[in-house]
Amino acid sequence: MAQKPSIPKGTRDFSPAEVVKRNYIFDTIRRIFRRYGFQPIETPAMENLSTLMGKYGEEGDKLLFKILNSGDFMSKVPEELAKEGDSVKITSAISEKGLRYDLTVPFARFVVQYRNDIVFPFRRYQIQPVWRADRPQKGRYREFYQCDVDVIGSDSLLNEAELIQIVDDVFRHLKINTVVKVNNRKILAGIAEIIGEHERLTDITVAIDKMEKIGADKVNQELAEKGLPAEAISRLQPILSLQGSTDQKLEQLEQILASSETGMKGIAELKILFGYTGRMNLQTEVELDLTLARGLNYYTGAIIEVKTTDMEMGSICGGGRYDDLTGIFGLPDVSGVGVSFGAERIYDVLEHLGLFPRESQEITRVMFVNFGEKEEAYCLPVLARLRSAGINAEIFPESGKMKKQMNYANRKEIPYVVLAGESEMEAGKFNLKHMSSGEQQLVDSEELIKVVSRF
Amino acid sequence: MAQKPSIPKGTRDFSPAEVVKRNYIFDTIRRIFRRYGFQPIETPAMENLSTLMGKYGEEGDKLLFKILNSGDFMSKVPEELAKEGDSVKITSAISEKGLRYDLTVPFARFVVQYRNDIVFPFRRYQIQPVWRADRPQKGRYREFYQCDVDVIGSDSLLNEAELIQIVDDVFRHLKINTVVKVNNRKILAGIAEIIGEHERLTDITVAIDKMEKIGADKVNQELAEKGLPAEAISRLQPILSLQGSTDQKLEQLEQILASSETGMKGIAELKILFGYTGRMNLQTEVELDLTLARGLNYYTGAIIEVKTTDMEMGSICGGGRYDDLTGIFGLPDVSGVGVSFGAERIYDVLEHLGLFPRESQEITRVMFVNFGEKEEAYCLPVLARLRSAGINAEIFPESGKMKKQMNYANRKEIPYVVLAGESEMEAGKFNLKHMSSGEQQLVDSEELIKVVSRF
Repeated sequence: MAQKPSIPKGTRDFSPAEVVKRNYIFDTIRRIFRRYGFQPIETPAMENLSTLMGKYGEEGDKLLFKILNSGDFMSKVPEELAKEGDSVKITSAISEKGLRYDLTVPFARFVVQYRNDIVFPFRRYQIQPVWRADRPQKGRYREFYQCDVDVIGSDSLLNEAELIQIVDDVFRHLKINTVVKVNNRKILAGIAEIIGEHERLTDITVAIDKMEKIGADKVNQELAEKGLPAEAISRLQPILSLQGSTDQKLEQLEQILASSETGMKGIAELKILFGYTGRMNLQTEVELDLTLARGLNYYTGAIIEVKTTDMEMGSICGGGRYDDLTGIFGLPDVSGVGVSFGAERIYDVLEHLGLFPRESQEITRVMFVNFGEKEEAYCLPVLARLRSAGINAEIFPESGKMKKQMNYANRKEIPYVVLAGESEMEAGKFNLKHMSSGEQQLVDSEELIKVVSRF
Repeated sequence: MAQKPSIPKGTRDFSPAEVVKRNYIFDTIRRIFRRYGFQPIETPAMENLSTLMGKYGEEGDKLLFKILNSGDFMSKVPEELAKEGDSVKITSAISEKGLRYDLTVPFARFVVQYRNDIVFPFRRYQIQPVWRADRPQKGRYREFYQCDVDVIGSDSLLNEAELIQIVDDVFRHLKINTVVKVNNRKILAGIAEIIGEHERLTDITVAIDKMEKIGADKVNQELAEKGLPAEAISRLQPILSLQGSTDQKLEQLEQILASSETGMKGIAELKILFGYTGRMNLQTEVELDLTLARGLNYYTGAIIEVKTTDMEMGSICGGGRYDDLTGIFGLPDVSGVGVSFGAERIYDVLEHLGLFPRESQEITRVMFVNFGEKEEAYCLPVLARLRSAGINAEIFPESGKMKKQMNYANRKEIPYVVLAGESEMEAGKFNLKHMSSGEQQLVDSEELIKVVSRF
């Protein structure tokens, strides 16, 4: 017997039930993206390594899945290099392509590559898998989907507001309660400026981003380790723990950041944004969270993070504005803003709360039991009519053990089973069994179609 | 300026217009698969090389995209091996995973791996990309989609018939005229037996598979080169060029193959299959083609190939029955049958014939022109109502040049544009412009929704 087959660690097979549930999420998100005038693009799974390398930091470079060049790749490796055995050096000689690590960098590449064909502002969405050679652990996979939606080529804050509206719409449709936390990178820059640590903005954002996870004490410890003076740290505290409503916080911030042009710009932007969202009849709470920083350095304006209030779970959606994403590919000064939905976590939330709708999970509505050649011939035309009427239906392909056939219907959770044996044929009827109640009714073909069409 | 960005050769980016058209194909196929009670599965892009290697012949092994192991992969390469520089030998030391080459082998792996959870007969479909390091050329890509539908665990010929019914249904919905060519591997085996070349079945099938492409003379030449005696070749000729209807051909074949048990079994199978399809009210012609062989050696029964009669084009769908696909993974004697739709070629046919429906290509139905802050605030609530009503709509995110905004609407092919300036606001109305006719009408918000909801 051959070796028991398996798949690479950190990857997953999806059973029919899982695919159907996942598609419920993707379809909902996709439908709403389109509702807001966003257009889909797709990019190849493989990108040139020159496109990917250096875009995700040193750690990211290591997490790229690299593809071995085809053919006699070793012929391109100088003997010296081969003998030396340095993996990093050899990699660049034997690999030119890597698997997409996220959808952001391929999108930036796409925008630059087709800038003459694209209609700006470009409202695009992209739902595709990405791959990371991360250490697999609970909830973290080496292959997973991202669902990104971005507007590029417009710096209007209406874009931010509409993205929050999309977030609200998506989670309302999925029946997940959420809170949207908003901050602005310019405010963080203003704060760094005010406490005299303008140059340490990155260290500060990386540290305070962990506030919720590790608490203020440990954040301060980390800031101190990064070399932030005690005075600066103590000046930072009251700012990050401002109390009151969003309006009240903004008012206090205006005092604190009065001398920082950047900080004041951030406040002005947030005021406009909250103005928009306040008029949008959102179901979700939208609140200012000054500890929200998000590690990604390319954000330059609004930062957005979405959490569910229904259970303990990391953020299920996040994003922000970036002013120079395409600059890395030679197209500077194009502003964009976008959010990314975390399909895997959304799946876990829906599963945990039992929110996958029943009808999204049903594949086959009706099964005909197969009693033999004649009965089969009697059923096939009705089966065809059911299908023409848009009803998912099937006939068990072989006559034979009734128990096996009913077991098949049960395990596939098919709600209706049709039994048509000799007596039904003689009467020109069909015995329709409702699997949940066990109830049976004798119907003609017209009635059959009518009954199973009902929801 | 950075290097002009590009993508690996043989791969493609898809623009919004292309994604939407491709999804029209995938959605149609998927809907019909479900209509017949098939369930979706998905498998990872990466498989263990032990799963993939040796399944596609020597040539196929070379065409697998292999993924470099993460980390210090060279540390696992013995110095001797590194010095030797043999690419094939080193590959197995530095790569454990490869990209999926087709959907068939991962499906076989899936069936064996989850055999205890699967309900047999297992009706599954799978629509996912595959990767091949083939030399790219017109119509041949290194990343492309396959749309596979299979029944595994049932040897009833009703399965073959239903697959042909699916083919008919898919292409009827896509409005492509087709002919379905059918043969049976057992008949080919019978023919090989009758001409005394039982052992050379593979050579014979590979050669006659090219009949349509290169003609009888060249096929004979190839057979001779493969060592088939002239007598066998001349006995083969009249069989392959049998004339008449499918029934007539089968009748003649029954005479010819009378002494071959396998051949007679093949004829009997085809008779049952044609019996089914003859009663199915198919739009497509289903015909016996004795030169149809399909290169793939794993077929053991029916072979199916679909061509369009609308234009010159290779087969757009094909498949057959295989009796031992899961045997390679240690689960023998499981019979399956399936077909695979060629999405790329179907795309080319629809494009060539102008058959993509207009409505499948529209993304945004309505755009609001942005005249400034006040007008924007006037439009946003109506925009939200349109979206709630299921209409894809957007507002240009910035006020400013009218020409730029109208150009945006034109290039995105948005059929309706709403203009609401000061005078419209005063009247509580909206100026709705039909972009194709240029016609404008003054409407209130109710009428607006009504007009743009119409198809």
